[in-house]
Amino acid sequence: MEISELGEFGLIEYIAGIIGETGGHDSEAEKNLILGIGDDAAAWRGEMSVQLATADTLVQDIHFSLDFISWRDLGWRAMSANLSDIAAMGGIPRYALVSISIPGSTAVENIGELYRGMTELARQHGTIVIGGNLSGAPLVVINITVLGAAGDAENIVLTRSAAMPGDEIAVTGWLGSAAGGLELLKTRLETDPESYGSLKQAFLRPVPRIKEGRILVEKGVRAAIDISDGLIADLGHICKASNAGAQIRADLVPVHPALKKYFGERALSLALGGGEDYELLFTAPAFIIKNVREAASCPVTVIGEITPDKPGGVVLADENGNRLDPAATGWKHFIPER
Amino acid sequence: MEISELGEFGLIEYIAGIIGETGGHDSEAEKNLILGIGDDAAAWRGEMSVQLATADTLVQDIHFSLDFISWRDLGWRAMSANLSDIAAMGGIPRYALVSISIPGSTAVENIGELYRGMTELARQHGTIVIGGNLSGAPLVVINITVLGAAGDAENIVLTRSAAMPGDEIAVTGWLGSAAGGLELLKTRLETDPESYGSLKQAFLRPVPRIKEGRILVEKGVRAAIDISDGLIADLGHICKASNAGAQIRADLVPVHPALKKYFGERALSLALGGGEDYELLFTAPAFIIKNVREAASCPVTVIGEITPDKPGGVVLADENGNRLDPAATGWKHFIPER
Repeated sequence: MEISELGEFGLIEYIAGIIGETGGHDSEAEKNLILGIGDDAAAWRGEMSVQLATADTLVQDIHFSLDFISWRDLGWRAMSANLSDIAAMGGIPRYALVSISIPGSTAVENIGELYRGMTELARQHGTIVIGGNLSGAPLVVINITVLGAAGDAENIVLTRSAAMPGDEIAVTGWLGSAAGGLELLKTRLETDPESYGSLKQAFLRPVPRIKEGRILVEKGVRAAIDISDGLIADLGHICKASNAGAQIRADLVPVHPALKKYFGERALSLALGGGEDYELLFTAPAFIIKNVREAASCPVTVIGEITPDKPGGVVLADENGNRLDPAATGWKHFIPER
Repeated sequence: MEISELGEFGLIEYIAGIIGETGGHDSEAEKNLILGIGDDAAAWRGEMSVQLATADTLVQDIHFSLDFISWRDLGWRAMSANLSDIAAMGGIPRYALVSISIPGSTAVENIGELYRGMTELARQHGTIVIGGNLSGAPLVVINITVLGAAGDAENIVLTRSAAMPGDEIAVTGWLGSAAGGLELLKTRLETDPESYGSLKQAFLRPVPRIKEGRILVEKGVRAAIDISDGLIADLGHICKASNAGAQIRADLVPVHPALKKYFGERALSLALGGGEDYELLFTAPAFIIKNVREAASCPVTVIGEITPDKPGGVVLADENGNRLDPAATGWKHFIPER
């Protein structure tokens, strides 16, 4: 059945049912919820800790293609981008508002899969979809707003502006895997399913680093961002906001063996410029980074340091300190050909 | 200059400047804000009162046409739709996240006007734009999420589900004016600017009934909705959520003299089915409605009553109690031809 046959209010009921399927996780968010989907606004009991809000939009054929991603993975991915922003603040996600603009000819089951993917990930982090909007459109546009809170009593959030000269620069996980995964999906290489799978999953089902963001706050990190535009671009955001520079070592950038295997020399370029890995990039004095590495259950790799020179500038060097040209740059919206 | 030339990050700075222009209103929201635009998420100090969140999307050529509305009015209108949802809960709006998907060929100045229209209205209600998203798209899609709070200590919010048989049904302001205004804009009738203007303004610059929503809570109303789908449709939402019926009198529905003048017999149909007036529709015992009418600075009109029969059903009657056929129905999304 097409959603145009079900109608707006029928579709709202259908979606509310899917969101209800994933209940019972007994999170703070669930305990404090007063009104979810179905009234003019959602309502919940407030809390005194610092509150967080972030929004992200995915536009069909700009940010995703239904040729390369299933509706369910698309839902996961859309939710992940927002949860990752809360992770980059060191916060705990609570509630999500999901707005979907979509052609009336879309199959109802596809919308169901989209919401299942979103709520599957959200539930893992105690986050509840409490509202949003549905409307017609000639193409699929997904906008998610996630609300969160700083953890516990300390009320500390990680910012882009807190990097200090002398800080080490570190990242979680592997970089470039999502960009590599997308390229493999586009070219439909199906050889060696095991290593292929790890890259594909990095693109289709990125894992927001919520737990690691909490560890950063606890161990004393104050500057962080999630890698959505690409390492060079996102480190540039930190440098600009912190009025500092940065030098990173190309040979230290963590690249997954599978990425090297498929892309060879290009693996580094993907790791520097490929966005949407949703790993955390953060800076802190060396002893704090060491404590983070010991506490984290994912790889934490030091890749360089914050410098006092040339605010906003990111310098790439080889293992001997010689400058390299970071030919790869971050993802840009509003490029005319897009 | 086109936004594709300015680039995403240049555009963010430009928008942050426009939002900054409208600062200095010293609202609760401003006092508690920690981080606005420019980090991974916005951050503010939390509060214990009941919190509210609502989201709304406007899609070009479905919800608006740039042939009939200026960028500035579009910004106002988009913000108004969200603030109205907070009004319908009896709440106070605090923060807005604005996500815009837009062609790269759009003039930067148009984006400026859009944000000026949004912030002009938001500021009047102490509301601050603290974040959002920018992305490319083949057409304009505007998504706004507004966060609010229940007022003062009572922590009461208005819901769709609190209507009781025997309640009177009342509305603020005039109905059908926005639908009439849109039709006049489309047909470009320019005669009699004075009455034309009032309808045009109802469509282009609807006023969210924030103050009236607060009065409803204070006077003891518990059931309300804002009229965005049309009177019959939105009253149907109240009846369904409250498991009750409703009977309204066609001759009591408040229709602006200008609407009657231009549309004659059709004025009633526009008032019953035309959405997007953003007036409040609410129900309460007669003495409460009387107190609301005395306190409000806009017209408050009783149009019928909540009945115990046929849950969800809305009956339209003439002044003698004879049933009429409400040929006009609410705005529907996902109708295939849209």
